[in-house]
Amino acid sequence: MTAQSSSHDAIVGVDIGGTNTVIGIFDAEGVLRLKRSIATIRGNPMRPTSNAVEFLERLSSEIVAMASEAGYRGIGAAGFGIPGWVEPGSGIALDSSNLGWRNVAFADDMSRRLDAPVFIDNDVKMYTLGEAAAGAGVGYRHLICLTLGTGLAAGIINDGVLVRGNRQLAGEFGHDVVDGTGYPCNCGKLGCLETIASASGIARLAEEAVRTGERTALGRLNRPITALDVYEACEAGDETALDIFRYVGRTLGRKLSTMALILAPEVFIVGGGVAAAGRYLMEPIREEMEIHLDQLDMRPELMAGKLGDSAGMMGATHVALERWRKESGRYSS
Amino acid sequence: MTAQSSSHDAIVGVDIGGTNTVIGIFDAEGVLRLKRSIATIRGNPMRPTSNAVEFLERLSSEIVAMASEAGYRGIGAAGFGIPGWVEPGSGIALDSSNLGWRNVAFADDMSRRLDAPVFIDNDVKMYTLGEAAAGAGVGYRHLICLTLGTGLAAGIINDGVLVRGNRQLAGEFGHDVVDGTGYPCNCGKLGCLETIASASGIARLAEEAVRTGERTALGRLNRPITALDVYEACEAGDETALDIFRYVGRTLGRKLSTMALILAPEVFIVGGGVAAAGRYLMEPIREEMEIHLDQLDMRPELMAGKLGDSAGMMGATHVALERWRKESGRYSS
Repeated sequence: MTAQSSSHDAIVGVDIGGTNTVIGIFDAEGVLRLKRSIATIRGNPMRPTSNAVEFLERLSSEIVAMASEAGYRGIGAAGFGIPGWVEPGSGIALDSSNLGWRNVAFADDMSRRLDAPVFIDNDVKMYTLGEAAAGAGVGYRHLICLTLGTGLAAGIINDGVLVRGNRQLAGEFGHDVVDGTGYPCNCGKLGCLETIASASGIARLAEEAVRTGERTALGRLNRPITALDVYEACEAGDETALDIFRYVGRTLGRKLSTMALILAPEVFIVGGGVAAAGRYLMEPIREEMEIHLDQLDMRPELMAGKLGDSAGMMGATHVALERWRKESGRYSS
Repeated sequence: MTAQSSSHDAIVGVDIGGTNTVIGIFDAEGVLRLKRSIATIRGNPMRPTSNAVEFLERLSSEIVAMASEAGYRGIGAAGFGIPGWVEPGSGIALDSSNLGWRNVAFADDMSRRLDAPVFIDNDVKMYTLGEAAAGAGVGYRHLICLTLGTGLAAGIINDGVLVRGNRQLAGEFGHDVVDGTGYPCNCGKLGCLETIASASGIARLAEEAVRTGERTALGRLNRPITALDVYEACEAGDETALDIFRYVGRTLGRKLSTMALILAPEVFIVGGGVAAAGRYLMEPIREEMEIHLDQLDMRPELMAGKLGDSAGMMGATHVALERWRKESGRYSS
């Protein structure tokens, strides 16, 4: 590929989620030309496949169609965020229970389908790279990004570089135990942080409050309570709902204080669906950090993510664009 | 400086401690030729100086004398580990309450005295680099080194690179609060980890046990109890002393589990004076990590440091040697 032909090639960023997959078609300057969301076709978590052919077929067809629709002749490079345990070097999705995948040679397969270099990484790491490159993290060298959704995980950037840890396992922060609690976690342990600080944790706490007879409007719903219900009850001034977010925020703030002492980030960026709760979540986090990070002048800023459900796609694009620029010699550095 | 003349130059590594300063004279291959310890001349912590001239004079004289004694004509490069808050880039020791220093332009001053390039870093970071380059960390890309002495701090290496954090403040792990405890820490907070997991913490726990009437041989000492006394009581089978180390180890192991989930190191290296307690400390740490890191297959190895009080000096030498090789063009890479 030469620099001359490059403007005819689309750069592709994709965030594969457990329910939806967000696809973005970008130009060589990283400007979004077309964005679309398709349903993720999941396999059976009980019988994980190494060959997710149906979804790969559907996904690559959509990408090729979108690139053509946006007026590109071909694809320059593509990046994919994948939930679960991913090996960027080999391009293999080692274990993604959400998708029902095990040892899927994603990059090789997708590269053949798109006739372009393909780069993959874990979805939380791509999310973090996205917020760092184009969202709330712009201008920071040291940042930690939390994705608060069904579960909880962290992406860490130190001095501009993603912290990966041994076997790519850094950031499993959601599985740190909250002392004095013991709700069973999907991982098999009891009392993991994500049994509290997550959409499912918030919903569970609300169900418990109703069951134990607390006076709350949440008891009047004739269906399972969601985190969104709890947020809406906060908006209506429901004390029980406010207490739940206060507890969730303070529990999370306590753990973030530990993380701040270990890593000294400049900023914590809170993203994922639960971040929509805004001040109901952020204020108790901030209060708790003020208690634990008072004397040491080490208190990071606290911000909400800016890119919403585009963060993962933006990070994947950023990775694809960087590699493509390097490989196509567009920048001599 | 040319490669030809280089073998006539000594490489110097120094670890400045609150009580003693360890000086090593090395050859250009990094082999130790002469090691000596001198008393550190401390200033007044209440009136910190920016010009620690007496100690710098004494230290530089000793280094020059030792280099000459070892048969070198001059000094090629020197590295210094300094307790407290240090800026490696500018070479300034910003704040070292142990030494009574504030804004000491250490590297410039020492460079003039030694007629050689001087590199400085925080003592714990130098300690970590030492264990990584020549001690228990050899062969690992992701490691965390703890220095358990009067206080407690951590040095973090991720993918072979020191994690520094914002303003060089990563690793202030000793000031993470242990919930349910409240002993005042030197930092002004209550219940910091280092009020338990440190030599002073162990001594305090022993004093408390005696005061509350526990049956222990430690009550028979007619002087303040030290961590070494508690260790020796363990050797004699004293149950109270064993319980103290069990509590200290499990408290530390709980915090290391959190750190493992965040950073996924391959190994924890426990160094500093308290590490001499060996299995009395290491076994409860290991037990606690087995509880908290069971399901996720993320349990790091746990090892004692190998270099003892030479670790900081080795790290400082390693830094000096690397920079000197680069600058003198000894290696084309």
